[in-house]
Amino acid sequence: MKAIVFDGEKAVYRTDVAMPERREGHSLIKVIMADICSTDKEILKGYRPDFRGIMGHEFVGRVIESDREDLIGKTVVGELNEGCGKCLYCRTGREKHCLSRAVIGMTIDGCFAEYMVLSDHLLHIVPEGLKPELAIFTEPLAAALEIVKQVKIDPSLNAAVIGDGRLSYMIAQVLSLSGTDLTVIGRHPEKLKMFEPFAKTALLENYKTEGGFRQLSAEECFEYVVDAAGNESGIETAMKLVRRMGTIILKSTYAGRTAIDMSYFAVNEVTLTGSRCGPFEPALKLLKEGRVSFPPVELYELNDFEKAFASSAFKAGFCFSGCCLPDP
Amino acid sequence: MKAIVFDGEKAVYRTDVAMPERREGHSLIKVIMADICSTDKEILKGYRPDFRGIMGHEFVGRVIESDREDLIGKTVVGELNEGCGKCLYCRTGREKHCLSRAVIGMTIDGCFAEYMVLSDHLLHIVPEGLKPELAIFTEPLAAALEIVKQVKIDPSLNAAVIGDGRLSYMIAQVLSLSGTDLTVIGRHPEKLKMFEPFAKTALLENYKTEGGFRQLSAEECFEYVVDAAGNESGIETAMKLVRRMGTIILKSTYAGRTAIDMSYFAVNEVTLTGSRCGPFEPALKLLKEGRVSFPPVELYELNDFEKAFASSAFKAGFCFSGCCLPDP
Repeated sequence: MKAIVFDGEKAVYRTDVAMPERREGHSLIKVIMADICSTDKEILKGYRPDFRGIMGHEFVGRVIESDREDLIGKTVVGELNEGCGKCLYCRTGREKHCLSRAVIGMTIDGCFAEYMVLSDHLLHIVPEGLKPELAIFTEPLAAALEIVKQVKIDPSLNAAVIGDGRLSYMIAQVLSLSGTDLTVIGRHPEKLKMFEPFAKTALLENYKTEGGFRQLSAEECFEYVVDAAGNESGIETAMKLVRRMGTIILKSTYAGRTAIDMSYFAVNEVTLTGSRCGPFEPALKLLKEGRVSFPPVELYELNDFEKAFASSAFKAGFCFSGCCLPDP
Repeated sequence: MKAIVFDGEKAVYRTDVAMPERREGHSLIKVIMADICSTDKEILKGYRPDFRGIMGHEFVGRVIESDREDLIGKTVVGELNEGCGKCLYCRTGREKHCLSRAVIGMTIDGCFAEYMVLSDHLLHIVPEGLKPELAIFTEPLAAALEIVKQVKIDPSLNAAVIGDGRLSYMIAQVLSLSGTDLTVIGRHPEKLKMFEPFAKTALLENYKTEGGFRQLSAEECFEYVVDAAGNESGIETAMKLVRRMGTIILKSTYAGRTAIDMSYFAVNEVTLTGSRCGPFEPALKLLKEGRVSFPPVELYELNDFEKAFASSAFKAGFCFSGCCLPDP
């Protein structure tokens, strides 16, 4: 079959990859559409040096073979972390944190291929009528929903999202549904425009003066600040923008250490909550009901993977069937 | 009157300090007993360079004059932060975080004196039968109770306190009341002995190997980890000891920045909650009911302040009346 394989140094388009073998408790899936996540690009930069195999973890597919009859023929999306099922984390609802978990596209074969295999319990049926080009947003939208799973958002309080990229867009869409007074803070006026239908927007430089941040009043600050800046400047900004006794939600991941005044957290009683993968079912529900919307996915053939990886579109991905090209 | 005054460089014993003037909404208090907090020692090292005045913020006293008749003649303890009463923080239950607050012993005259003045709403009546040498622990015990005010402690999960000093002792006493499986981790076998009646104890070195921390299993880790180490090593230890999706409670304050891998929080979905001053009423209740216990306070005359500051006792303080020396 056709697949994009990471060979330890680079992505390679191959047409001779063996079909995956279905194991007990797992389903064989024909991939309909797959999306490129920034993590895939990080892998090309060395994020997972030990990984060799088929890339990709965001997909929509159709179940071809399964032990579970209710899954056969269904359109599905799937979670990426498969735990051992036995350890403390797996037994306490934290399978995604299992220390010996397998992760598609990162430790085992992923979805940039015509067929893939995934454990049945990680699959979620796409509701009828939800098109693949929307269902493909399930995984990143679920990651945004993880925030409201972890932190009770009081809708009478205000919130800010730092960053004007794709991750921020997912998060801002979710937070805007709470009714909270939401401000998205970024560096790019043209990107911030995208957020205007559902959030206030502000340029980061408005909070700054020559030497750094202005002294902000309590009114100018926020009870909830989500750091989705994607680099180490985000946490510093969040620490300036959050109110005392407020909450910072950390979504950014980046390499290296940052010099932090940890006493700030104790003195100001600020809470910092790290947040990662989230729940798929509410993401599918919001997508199906049209509560969230996204720019169209830019789709490529699998052998055009270099163009797809280089794309600056909101989302770029691969279409395997030609059936799901977005409306113009 | 007699008082210990910070002159900008050092503590000075004076006998010629003017009696404080009571203002509306404030009570005049005759101090019975006052305690030295590590913050007082930090002031001598330059923690509050702009402060000049009477030191001290932990006290037990008797109300001599007040607009509130129910307070007159009562034994009281008092909170240290007096907010402006008007700002966003004061209006939303966060007076202790008011940006223009006055703090006794840090920005205005404190309690290392025969008399002091404090706003009525910051005073708490000491229950009858609770001796001053126990009531004096109200403020630090309240700071420990702030943890259970901020974080829901599931008693079926386990918790660790890092540090074997006074702050850890307060925290461990409070956490042990929840029924949680509690371990205190420190560097000093002789100090850890104090915790044995109500907690497991472990030497920090048991978690380490030559190069740093051992790879710990999920079982060895903790759902809640309180950093009360008092220095920057505490947060690194906490990050190693906390389970994924667990909670670190940060009680330590210290100068300077620490190099932190912030992505750790996102990847492991760990929450960090900074924690400071806490609620007085439950502290008084626990003290009155004998739910917590502490080693006796080592008491000095005010003019012996240098000895008191140099004391290595669990708590050292000043007795103003001679009436409240602890039982031998």
